[in-house]
Amino acid sequence: MSAARRPRLRAPVFEVGLKGYVYGAEAVRLARAADRLGREHGVTVIFDPQAVDIAAVARATVDLLVFAQHMDPVPVGRGVGSVLPEALREAGAVGTLLNHSERRMTLGDISRAITRAHEVGLATLVFADAPEEAAAIAQLGPDIVLAEPPELIATSRSAGAEMRGFVERSIELVRRIDPEIIVMCGAGIATPDDVTQVMALGVGGTGSSSGILKAADPVAMMGAMLAATSHAWTEMQAPGAALSRGPKQ
Amino acid sequence: MSAARRPRLRAPVFEVGLKGYVYGAEAVRLARAADRLGREHGVTVIFDPQAVDIAAVARATVDLLVFAQHMDPVPVGRGVGSVLPEALREAGAVGTLLNHSERRMTLGDISRAITRAHEVGLATLVFADAPEEAAAIAQLGPDIVLAEPPELIATSRSAGAEMRGFVERSIELVRRIDPEIIVMCGAGIATPDDVTQVMALGVGGTGSSSGILKAADPVAMMGAMLAATSHAWTEMQAPGAALSRGPKQ
Amino acid sequence: MSAARRPRLRAPVFEVGLKGYVYGAEAVRLARAADRLGREHGVTVIFDPQAVDIAAVARATVDLLVFAQHMDPVPVGRGVGSVLPEALREAGAVGTLLNHSERRMTLGDISRAITRAHEVGLATLVFADAPEEAAAIAQLGPDIVLAEPPELIATSRSAGAEMRGFVERSIELVRRIDPEIIVMCGAGIATPDDVTQVMALGVGGTGSSSGILKAADPVAMMGAMLAATSHAWTEMQAPGAALSRGPKQ
Amino acid sequence: MSAARRPRLRAPVFEVGLKGYVYGAEAVRLARAADRLGREHGVTVIFDPQAVDIAAVARATVDLLVFAQHMDPVPVGRGVGSVLPEALREAGAVGTLLNHSERRMTLGDISRAITRAHEVGLATLVFADAPEEAAAIAQLGPDIVLAEPPELIATSRSAGAEMRGFVERSIELVRRIDPEIIVMCGAGIATPDDVTQVMALGVGGTGSSSGILKAADPVAMMGAMLAATSHAWTEMQAPGAALSRGPKQ
Repeated sequence: MSAARRPRLRAPVFEVGLKGYVYGAEAVRLARAADRLGREHGVTVIFDPQAVDIAAVARATVDLLVFAQHMDPVPVGRGVGSVLPEALREAGAVGTLLNHSERRMTLGDISRAITRAHEVGLATLVFADAPEEAAAIAQLGPDIVLAEPPELIATSRSAGAEMRGFVERSIELVRRIDPEIIVMCGAGIATPDDVTQVMALGVGGTGSSSGILKAADPVAMMGAMLAATSHAWTEMQAPGAALSRGPKQ
Repeated sequence: MSAARRPRLRAPVFEVGLKGYVYGAEAVRLARAADRLGREHGVTVIFDPQAVDIAAVARATVDLLVFAQHMDPVPVGRGVGSVLPEALREAGAVGTLLNHSERRMTLGDISRAITRAHEVGLATLVFADAPEEAAAIAQLGPDIVLAEPPELIATSRSAGAEMRGFVERSIELVRRIDPEIIVMCGAGIATPDDVTQVMALGVGGTGSSSGILKAADPVAMMGAMLAATSHAWTEMQAPGAALSRGPKQ
Repeated sequence: MSAARRPRLRAPVFEVGLKGYVYGAEAVRLARAADRLGREHGVTVIFDPQAVDIAAVARATVDLLVFAQHMDPVPVGRGVGSVLPEALREAGAVGTLLNHSERRMTLGDISRAITRAHEVGLATLVFADAPEEAAAIAQLGPDIVLAEPPELIATSRSAGAEMRGFVERSIELVRRIDPEIIVMCGAGIATPDDVTQVMALGVGGTGSSSGILKAADPVAMMGAMLAATSHAWTEMQAPGAALSRGPKQ
Repeated sequence: MSAARRPRLRAPVFEVGLKGYVYGAEAVRLARAADRLGREHGVTVIFDPQAVDIAAVARATVDLLVFAQHMDPVPVGRGVGSVLPEALREAGAVGTLLNHSERRMTLGDISRAITRAHEVGLATLVFADAPEEAAAIAQLGPDIVLAEPPELIATSRSAGAEMRGFVERSIELVRRIDPEIIVMCGAGIATPDDVTQVMALGVGGTGSSSGILKAADPVAMMGAMLAATSHAWTEMQAPGAALSRGPKQ
């Protein structure tokens, strides 16, 4: 099968991770805001609702990249409870997360899921929790690798302050394998300042989940984080500043 | 929390298991047909599409019981890639399968998932592959236990012919624990005759997946199987014939 | 196959859970002490080292019941990395833990593992974390069910003080299904007083892991806990006191 | 912690995979034969019994490299049913298999297990089922990568005949990342001819499980396969022939 066309991802990227915090009508409301804010700030927004909400979110938005939270490397056929690539695509998803720290996958399943996703035209954002894992994943041809130091996930400690070495090594190892892969870094992003700090390390994007969803005003927080992403990205693009940007634009 | 109201299930029940065979517009088309055929034959139809298709199937149908293929016993909050009970309910599902042979769960997760499902108003159909497992599950308070001899799953050998002892023992053990639980039996149901044979063993319902979805005309096959279910059920209700019927009607 | 003879378990029982705290020569030294102390106090001691240490522990002891920490329901043949029942038996194990909170199993695997264990002459101690799960497990025919409230596992809060209802309900549900099954209760046993309190709830035994292994003097702590077990058991056997004792003696 | 010394592996290597076919006294008998035959033919033999048999096999042999079938990336402490690196080492193992097709691991666990193994002085043989997976694993620093086309595992079709491209690509990708890593290839090795064919593709070793253990005379089959390994290796070492040999000797 020749691979279907999947969306071309363009840095800077910001992932809004819904997990199981928000669903249904509230997820759609947040998605519309994310869609608008992404356009305003010139940031590519990846938004990943519960699977049951993908179709509604996709219908309600224009530029938002609707991703599944997980996908299984299964063919059409058996597989009760699995998430079928073709079904995601038809429902309006344009990509999928893989190997998130709350949904680890075997190496073989990550490899096959990337292949299956690309076959049906879904982009892939694969999580790693060490620079060497980011390099391992880069060998499998994903669109984005998101490296998160596991000790910071779902905390609200500023990731940027603690992880310069972690991020720089992730970027270096992945770029050596394939400079087209966008390297993102997350974990512990709770404020716009956290975004600024992590973006300054040279990544192509970042993201937040509880930092947005547990904020007093999630839409305002999302707006402030997207503004910080855009601003930090522009700074990094100044001559001599850039590190990992993924595909040339 | 006081438990939300969940649908009261009434035998005979027939489960149309979509697995990953059919999705999107084709799943909706099949759902509409199942909805109509269930009414025509007086059979309760459980229909379980891919999670991404639940909302569309629920909107397109009236009496069909739309079930998820799997649900996780998670609370609102973290859990990337999990299937959140509240999200299923808001999308229009009225129940969920649990512990299917293609998606086995730990004992603790089955127990907690039944509790969580009932909290939010979702009915539960739990799979077992031995009479003793059916009894173990019955201790956890599900609405339906579906016992399948594993050697027959996804074959097309007539289940009814080979499993009288298996089914009768499942019914007896479950009824002793809670006669309100409906006992179903599946595995290997490929023709209307298979339906007739397994229903004659005294179960409250049966189901099919590849038997319908790989048939030359799935809707026609579904109609013939539902007719067989209805007919066999009526026969069993004759004085002195009945075994497991679940809740009194 | 007719089932091989497995050890007849006699209450009171105390489980010394080695987990990965202690191994090799140190595990053998502790096993010898446990063997001697069990005899001195008239308590059946279940001792479960790392699989690699089972043979050495079995050779070094006389009355100690050497259990595996886990066993897989596999037949002789394939299964890289699995723990084969026949291999455990030949190495000197007389039983196995199943479904510990750090090694959860699917319902089907628990069921098949109990069957396989009994086929080769291994006793089974199966963990549950709710009274209903204990009842579910009782349907599968284990020798012992050990119920642990998950919020207390590996804490040092006295289990006895917080869990009267939990334990009494577990005993009642299991006894109704099969009074020969011994009901144990653990979790959070850190001192001899904890042992006394939980035994007073009527269980047939208890156990400890980090409470012993992280004590300043593990052998002294084990001795004091076994003394408390023996004493509490004798108290409970006074006319009118008893609850769950497993097989009549 | 500075890493403990682990055995230096020298090609050609032959892995005798015991799985759950053979255990106890029979495993020890086979180990003694493998130890002697390895010396006779100048082949490094990796022998992986059930965990309970590791100590006995290590005591009974001299040059044989006794590997565990699986190891968990856990620290000393909790982890019921896990295989602790330190316990393996003290029992006499000098290495471990990881990620076998019958015991898949998450990417993160493979990465952490390699690190933990090397910390305690255990060598690592990691399985892959595609050339890209072999490359991903190579990023994590194992001693050996063994690539197996999954469609051939546990068959008796000659691997060599069907998989030239698969093997050559695995060797090329791994060598580019780290030429010190030995690349092996297995799956479907049922006869000495199969050994010859797969070794001729340039790998540093191969192995067999059911091909030996289900042979009429396992020791004779092992001898013939080791002879074939040695002979093929010598041929490949002729000027201009070599591909992947692992560490220079």
